[in-house]
Amino acid sequence: MDRETCLSFDRQDPLAAMREAFAIPDGVIYLDGNSLGALPRQTVQRIDQVITEEWGAGLIRSWNNAHWIDAPARLGDKIARLIGARAGEVIVADSTSVNLFKLLAGGLRLQPGRHFILTEAANFPTDLYIAQGLIELLEGNHALRVVERAELERALDGSVAILMLTHVDYGSGEIHDMRRLTSAARKHGTLTLWDLSHSAGAVPVDLNASQVDLAIGCGYKYLNGGPGAPAYLFIASALQEAMRSPLSGWMGHAAPFAFEPDYRPAQGIARQLAGSPPILSMLALEVAVDLWLTVNQQEARRKSMALGDLFIKLVDETLRDLAVEVASPREAQIRGSQVSLRHKQAYRVMRALIDRGVIGDFRTPDLMRFGFASLYTRYVDIFDAISCLREVLITRAWQRPEYATRLTVT
Amino acid sequence: MDRETCLSFDRQDPLAAMREAFAIPDGVIYLDGNSLGALPRQTVQRIDQVITEEWGAGLIRSWNNAHWIDAPARLGDKIARLIGARAGEVIVADSTSVNLFKLLAGGLRLQPGRHFILTEAANFPTDLYIAQGLIELLEGNHALRVVERAELERALDGSVAILMLTHVDYGSGEIHDMRRLTSAARKHGTLTLWDLSHSAGAVPVDLNASQVDLAIGCGYKYLNGGPGAPAYLFIASALQEAMRSPLSGWMGHAAPFAFEPDYRPAQGIARQLAGSPPILSMLALEVAVDLWLTVNQQEARRKSMALGDLFIKLVDETLRDLAVEVASPREAQIRGSQVSLRHKQAYRVMRALIDRGVIGDFRTPDLMRFGFASLYTRYVDIFDAISCLREVLITRAWQRPEYATRLTVT
Repeated sequence: MDRETCLSFDRQDPLAAMREAFAIPDGVIYLDGNSLGALPRQTVQRIDQVITEEWGAGLIRSWNNAHWIDAPARLGDKIARLIGARAGEVIVADSTSVNLFKLLAGGLRLQPGRHFILTEAANFPTDLYIAQGLIELLEGNHALRVVERAELERALDGSVAILMLTHVDYGSGEIHDMRRLTSAARKHGTLTLWDLSHSAGAVPVDLNASQVDLAIGCGYKYLNGGPGAPAYLFIASALQEAMRSPLSGWMGHAAPFAFEPDYRPAQGIARQLAGSPPILSMLALEVAVDLWLTVNQQEARRKSMALGDLFIKLVDETLRDLAVEVASPREAQIRGSQVSLRHKQAYRVMRALIDRGVIGDFRTPDLMRFGFASLYTRYVDIFDAISCLREVLITRAWQRPEYATRLTVT
Repeated sequence: MDRETCLSFDRQDPLAAMREAFAIPDGVIYLDGNSLGALPRQTVQRIDQVITEEWGAGLIRSWNNAHWIDAPARLGDKIARLIGARAGEVIVADSTSVNLFKLLAGGLRLQPGRHFILTEAANFPTDLYIAQGLIELLEGNHALRVVERAELERALDGSVAILMLTHVDYGSGEIHDMRRLTSAARKHGTLTLWDLSHSAGAVPVDLNASQVDLAIGCGYKYLNGGPGAPAYLFIASALQEAMRSPLSGWMGHAAPFAFEPDYRPAQGIARQLAGSPPILSMLALEVAVDLWLTVNQQEARRKSMALGDLFIKLVDETLRDLAVEVASPREAQIRGSQVSLRHKQAYRVMRALIDRGVIGDFRTPDLMRFGFASLYTRYVDIFDAISCLREVLITRAWQRPEYATRLTVT
């Protein structure tokens, strides 16, 4: 595999033109869209308009005239189209962690007599933490059952209220079989709650076809919504009437501006709103989601798999005897839009790469993650990133002492 | 009182120049800064920089290099200076509603055996709703005790875990005596939780001098942080070690990037963070708070009282026999930075005013609210607003049928 071949892949890439929609800085190969998606160029003008025209000139009137008040449901309906949900099943609100809390609390209420939330040890930590916090708040009636991935199906039984899983593993990128696990859970009357943070914009998700009950996901990774973009949550239509949010704020009230003394949940998914949404961050997410809606999802997935396959092929061909190991599935079908490599000095190697303009990230203790964003990652980027990695490993450039110092965000 | 006199007040106003820091549209008299503060001009450039340089060019590196990760604590420390708190006692996160949930849940845990949250019937509805949602989640061990304002002190006893009040009433603008009520609560071992949403940027608040335990507040009203700006919360230093957040997400973990399986709360106020913060909205708030920190707070309060006094004086002088009634305290010392008027057709009158460029808002059933933002409201604005109101009332312009249709946000 040579660079020229990669360039020819790019020339044949039906999504190649999408890269122009993003502001990728010169001299940077950005392989961390799984952590913070790149900036869609249109976001700059749109947010300037939101600030100067809608906030500045429209002032309070923009809640109506610029349809700010509808943004959580409007964006939810748009994201629904990306994850196999129907309009009215998704709403944008708060952070992924806060949304998880709402759905776990609401879900446990629907499962009286069932004491366990089942999850896997490798789940994204904040998901475990949120479940722990809720269980602590509920004072002893519930517990987290944490098992290894391979034990999940066997650990399902009539005592499990909710099976809580992240669809694509943040570390390895391995994809769970959502349909099989959801179906297994249903047989035991267990609700499923899927975290789609590394899925939406990366791999196909069809929540309704898989008969998923509940889901959450984040807006700032592959969706490109911007730093700390609001998150979303999904509740299957059939469950919405029964689901209550413990965070019963006024935006989820049936009549927020009636100022009634008692909480009365809004119909449907809207009751999952709590306080006023951060409009600037939310409308930046909308630009990015709108961009996604112009893309053929199958095409995006095909490219994401091809980029990952190319990455692994180049690792195999060029990084032999350099002490790196592929820590992601080699089979594209069960791999998200990332490849992780294991190296004993992963942190320092990643710092050296970033210093050279190849941006991935590190996950403790020894993983380098490289994410592929079909909308803006090129085949030649993969080639150049691996060349850079080879150079860093061969020259042992990672040994420079400044790469040992830990940054706050790593 | 004539217009020329009002103009002379503006010429003598030591804060007059601050208006230039805001983008107030031509033809608008904006008296709704108590609902959504106006746009600081600097916000436009700052957010453009955040988007193009920090997100676009800096990408994931900006969590460190642009200090995004420190924003919640940094902004908290700045807001602390506006509300009489110390550095490390305030953090910016989530929405006011979500922060209230955290502090109520954390506070109840500190008060075993005490079953009541005491509040007043006129509290802002979302505060009541959030308390109701938490109580429902905790399944019957707690209850909300709702009394009239005058009964609050008498309703305090050893069964009250938390006294939850909004400092400045959203309807009437009446200010509670924070020091007296807090002191009364302390005598019964009751924690106090103050909602400062209509206080910060409007009236002096000295949380430490009043020995307040807990507080929350919103960023998008008098602070001018932008639509749905993140909110803040305060926990007195002495309580921080004992307070847990039920929303125990990774941003509140002692080592968020260690990816440990179990939640371990960060030291101090940082443990009140849950998920990733919406950076665009948060950094817009920072511009606005920085602007506030350049202002003499006493001067701002003096002006806010003078604007309210002028408003009431003009109502008395020019709106006699026009069926409006002042629904706010006439004594400036106990009045927030707003005056509310009662009128049987308040909704329609307000719609007619807004149509004529005088923007206040309506609160059910019969209140017109007019907020005064010391940083950009002029004395002449008050004069012109009252003239417009007089015109609308005398001509009965509010009778036009289109003013009867209810907008989503009213």
